[in-house]
Amino acid sequence: MTTVDVKQVVAKHIVSPKGFTAAGMHCGVKHKKKDLALLFSEVPASVAGVFTTNAIKAAPVVVTKETIYDSRTLQAVVLNSGNANACTGKQGLADAKQMQQLVADKFMIPANTVGVCSTGVIGQHLPMEPIIKGIQEIELGDSVEHGVHFAEALLTTDTVMKNTAYTVMIDNKEVTIAGTAKGSGMIEPNMATMLGVITTDAKIDSDTLQTLLAAATNVTFNAITVDGDTSTNDTVLALANGLAGNESLTPEHADWDAFKEAFRLVSQDLAKMIAKDGEGATKLIETTVIGAATNEEAIKIAKTVVGSPLVKTAVFGNDANWGRILAAVGYSGCAIDPTNVFIKIGDEAVVDGGEPLDFSEAYLLEYLKQPEIKIVVDLHVGEGQGKAWGCDLTYDYVQINATYRS
Amino acid sequence: MTTVDVKQVVAKHIVSPKGFTAAGMHCGVKHKKKDLALLFSEVPASVAGVFTTNAIKAAPVVVTKETIYDSRTLQAVVLNSGNANACTGKQGLADAKQMQQLVADKFMIPANTVGVCSTGVIGQHLPMEPIIKGIQEIELGDSVEHGVHFAEALLTTDTVMKNTAYTVMIDNKEVTIAGTAKGSGMIEPNMATMLGVITTDAKIDSDTLQTLLAAATNVTFNAITVDGDTSTNDTVLALANGLAGNESLTPEHADWDAFKEAFRLVSQDLAKMIAKDGEGATKLIETTVIGAATNEEAIKIAKTVVGSPLVKTAVFGNDANWGRILAAVGYSGCAIDPTNVFIKIGDEAVVDGGEPLDFSEAYLLEYLKQPEIKIVVDLHVGEGQGKAWGCDLTYDYVQINATYRS
Repeated sequence: MTTVDVKQVVAKHIVSPKGFTAAGMHCGVKHKKKDLALLFSEVPASVAGVFTTNAIKAAPVVVTKETIYDSRTLQAVVLNSGNANACTGKQGLADAKQMQQLVADKFMIPANTVGVCSTGVIGQHLPMEPIIKGIQEIELGDSVEHGVHFAEALLTTDTVMKNTAYTVMIDNKEVTIAGTAKGSGMIEPNMATMLGVITTDAKIDSDTLQTLLAAATNVTFNAITVDGDTSTNDTVLALANGLAGNESLTPEHADWDAFKEAFRLVSQDLAKMIAKDGEGATKLIETTVIGAATNEEAIKIAKTVVGSPLVKTAVFGNDANWGRILAAVGYSGCAIDPTNVFIKIGDEAVVDGGEPLDFSEAYLLEYLKQPEIKIVVDLHVGEGQGKAWGCDLTYDYVQINATYRS
Repeated sequence: MTTVDVKQVVAKHIVSPKGFTAAGMHCGVKHKKKDLALLFSEVPASVAGVFTTNAIKAAPVVVTKETIYDSRTLQAVVLNSGNANACTGKQGLADAKQMQQLVADKFMIPANTVGVCSTGVIGQHLPMEPIIKGIQEIELGDSVEHGVHFAEALLTTDTVMKNTAYTVMIDNKEVTIAGTAKGSGMIEPNMATMLGVITTDAKIDSDTLQTLLAAATNVTFNAITVDGDTSTNDTVLALANGLAGNESLTPEHADWDAFKEAFRLVSQDLAKMIAKDGEGATKLIETTVIGAATNEEAIKIAKTVVGSPLVKTAVFGNDANWGRILAAVGYSGCAIDPTNVFIKIGDEAVVDGGEPLDFSEAYLLEYLKQPEIKIVVDLHVGEGQGKAWGCDLTYDYVQINATYRS
């Protein structure tokens, strides 16, 4: 890890960077809670996006991908929760494009500088009447309250808002990177019903931003899993409006490492918050794999462990069932040597050389009651390392998903 | 499907075919329930086996694979439940070999004609004292009761025994094929904590039997999923002792198709029973995929659908949430055309041309309360077809697995 001077912002929200305004409101897609969010940059911003790998892509994903491929620039993003506008056919595409056009008209900007995101129930047409009215009425601002409303309007079954922000000095100018996201079911990378929006006032071109976002996503958003279901709507958008006044950032820039690290921290904070707030979850599970053949395999193994329903239920039950961890390592499909695996839960080593160790069940019973559980696996195969995050599997996950649509 | 004359046996159990005896008893690995099973053939039998693909293989898997690779013949199989003898290192291997040797000594047969299977908690050493005593005391027989005791002794969190048997005429001689299996968690093909034993009095050499078992496994045992966790212990063994007196079966034999179909039915019955009795399950979900690029992709898509936690919880909640089915098809990684997918739940078409249809929610609410739910997906991509089976995800799955070890 590079040693760089990155500071966490205290009142962290999407409008922390210069020149961004936002809002969130209830328009009527949901019964009562906020369901419409809008982000605006006072100048057109460089943009990067990563999207679901599901072959069934929701209409807003199709529209936003085309939009940013075309314009490489966004000035606004409109988002709704309560309805994913997914599996909605031609009408769905028309509805997503209408959302985009309404925002363009509101600000008198080109439609191809407006991004669209939706999250919520799939397979139902978007109720356009409340959305049209909402877009007309919604009022932007740059206060903490506006940032909070924006974050609230993205939530579906999430129990908490997910906001983070960091500052970093670039060319002796303070640059801010902020992010807001929502989870919390259908979470399996590449990607999952998660929406993420990252804003920064740094100056950076779209191509460089895209490369940075893709790299950060691989080790953060793509390293979390809640239920293994890859959503139709996953989207992370990054907007950089350049208002901090730095020299344009590239990997050759003297302060690149600092910016890169701050950007990774924003992504990682959001990813961990999503995993921790997985549907019904009571605990965050972090698995670190070292000694894998490659970094990619390390992340894959770590994800297999945090994604195993049997590991997840054991953690929920405060059961130090390390055999399930070892079994998950075994079916990850990656290179391992069964006779040379080391596993640690918290500070307690439980397996070494593939053989069970005597360990303190009492310590682990207490440890597993903590809100954040750390598992370390050393494979002694190579130099690859990586982390993944997930959550426990609880009665509430079943309850939420057996009753969500109705 | 070939039209062949295959008859289901009424009192179906592992000792239905000629020349097999079996037993099941409580020896003391578990507190009270039966935990030791033994199968014996009066003559050495051709043998085939399929085993877990998990890189972490339990000791009995390692021992039994080596044994049948070496001898191509088994005369006995000893099985225990309550302890999987997995992740138990060198001691575990020694324990599995001791089980094998004890049975060889009991019947005065070579150790390399004895198979060993274990299922239960992983990561704990097998308590050998009760097993040694049990193997000495257990008494074989060929009554229905003996078959029932054998089946009972395999169960862990299973709620029902899993037995099936069919007869088929080969060379005008009645040939019987019977099977017994256990589930019911850590079920994900290739393979899952499932043990299966298939017996037949047919005459067939080990190589032909192996090819037949592997092919049948691909469309049955490998087409079920309960939780996506691939176990360390999965084993299906097929023993053919030749006592029916038929001419040796090969694909060139006039009655091959009938035998093959009966063998597939035994495998499919066991696989479906395992899926239906998945931990905490209240319903069997069968997904049929047609119009896929290949048969392999059809099975993969069908498995992705029945394996989706969101589909599983929706079925538990009687919610016709077809969007989750379509989303699972989309993330299967297989060739699909999002604009040409057809989906039917029961007799009600819900999606056509990738677009939602008006359908009767009332019908589907009632339909989804049935114990067996059928989903059909037509991809209109090619000629591939296949089926997979799974179960709903319920509160009880969480309860069972959050408290299983302790």
